[in-house]
Amino acid sequence: MKPVLHIVKIGGKLLDEPGLRTSCLASLASLKEPCVLVHGGGSRATTLAQETGVGVCMVDGRRITDDATLEIALMVYAGLLNKQLVAELQAKGCNALGLSGADGDLIRSHKRPARPIDFGWVGDVDHVRTELLGTLIGQGLCPVLCALTHDGRGQLLNTNADTIATEVAIALSSEFRVRLWYCFEKEGVLRDVEEPHSVIRLLDLQLYHRLRDEGRVASGMIPKLDNAFRAREGGVETVGIGKAGYFAGDSINFTQIQ
Amino acid sequence: MKPVLHIVKIGGKLLDEPGLRTSCLASLASLKEPCVLVHGGGSRATTLAQETGVGVCMVDGRRITDDATLEIALMVYAGLLNKQLVAELQAKGCNALGLSGADGDLIRSHKRPARPIDFGWVGDVDHVRTELLGTLIGQGLCPVLCALTHDGRGQLLNTNADTIATEVAIALSSEFRVRLWYCFEKEGVLRDVEEPHSVIRLLDLQLYHRLRDEGRVASGMIPKLDNAFRAREGGVETVGIGKAGYFAGDSINFTQIQ
Repeated sequence: MKPVLHIVKIGGKLLDEPGLRTSCLASLASLKEPCVLVHGGGSRATTLAQETGVGVCMVDGRRITDDATLEIALMVYAGLLNKQLVAELQAKGCNALGLSGADGDLIRSHKRPARPIDFGWVGDVDHVRTELLGTLIGQGLCPVLCALTHDGRGQLLNTNADTIATEVAIALSSEFRVRLWYCFEKEGVLRDVEEPHSVIRLLDLQLYHRLRDEGRVASGMIPKLDNAFRAREGGVETVGIGKAGYFAGDSINFTQIQ
Repeated sequence: MKPVLHIVKIGGKLLDEPGLRTSCLASLASLKEPCVLVHGGGSRATTLAQETGVGVCMVDGRRITDDATLEIALMVYAGLLNKQLVAELQAKGCNALGLSGADGDLIRSHKRPARPIDFGWVGDVDHVRTELLGTLIGQGLCPVLCALTHDGRGQLLNTNADTIATEVAIALSSEFRVRLWYCFEKEGVLRDVEEPHSVIRLLDLQLYHRLRDEGRVASGMIPKLDNAFRAREGGVETVGIGKAGYFAGDSINFTQIQ
């Protein structure tokens, strides 16, 4: 029987609020099974872009990654956040090791086509090199992946962290019984966005499509849920969405994707 | 017989000038034996500190690392530079993997005592975990180390890149015949600083002490040469100082430490 592997994705407010972040990392360090952490950026990239005069250019609610914005992403995601998370996990007894998709050629991607919208240096994932992750996990290490990939020709690319978690989870499902946990600041997918305790405990594709068609899923949740269902279809054993340490059993309230 | 391992240290102008940097990485990618790259920062950390209003505080010609300066170092060394070097090496067919000393608990250090001068978050190396480096090298990977370490209790520490190269070289000498190459913008240690071709081909401790006592060694070279002789005493087989790709035989003009 294949061994269990947890893949935990954190981002946004979980990274920005030290208390939430620390409790999430403590839950992660308490896991008995091996684990991969995937992190997005927090608000720091936006602050740094403003401080350095790079600015932020959004189209259709999504950030355009020009040369200067890619440098900001490299600095904040691969440098500041990744190393802070690694050092904090090390202090909690978890042997973390931070990586981007360029390191060890871990995640190859290609620049998203410039039409209809040119998002700049944004990459869509082509291939995850699972051998390297398998070796690191086998050595008792916890890979900590930031949301950057490369095209193998020297170009680094900004890549959505939920997508990285999903692709890595699918790729590792041939070797592990993967439990994929998307963590955010809410307890799960809500039936009523105004009601924080209206968590949907089991969400199947039929219910998701119905809620989405009725406009009852927040627009920011749609790509996350598309990723979640894609992971299930790709062979990921368990997929959950919930708050901070729910993946370690700290809360029984979360959304499980069926 | 132990296998050969190259440890190449680059910094300063080699990182700042794209032409020099690219030719140095090409030389590195052309090596037949395994390799570890260690890099310092370039001028970018200073620029970013100015842009973000962090500023630069120097005492006795050395930078004080306060909280904000440590964040700059994390962003520029571990983020921007480390990932750019990794992606560029990947494009040249070298399977590079970037690491700080916190990753995989690779390099443990302690904060330098606050007296006589409090340099802030600067670390002196205690231990290099050679098993992890050995595993990565055994997998055909080229570790790319930035100049940051940690204390194991969650604190990241700024650490001199020459010192990291030296300590890693000494630690790996039990398993490898290590060739340690410090690269900079000159062809080697000069007998006359005004004369760029007056390279000392063989430098022993006696000659070094004499030149230093006569004030003929540039002050910036003294810590580098102290590191170089320390490496030789610590069992490193070959130690060289020279320009860009001399370690790959691109130049026969360089200083060898005896």
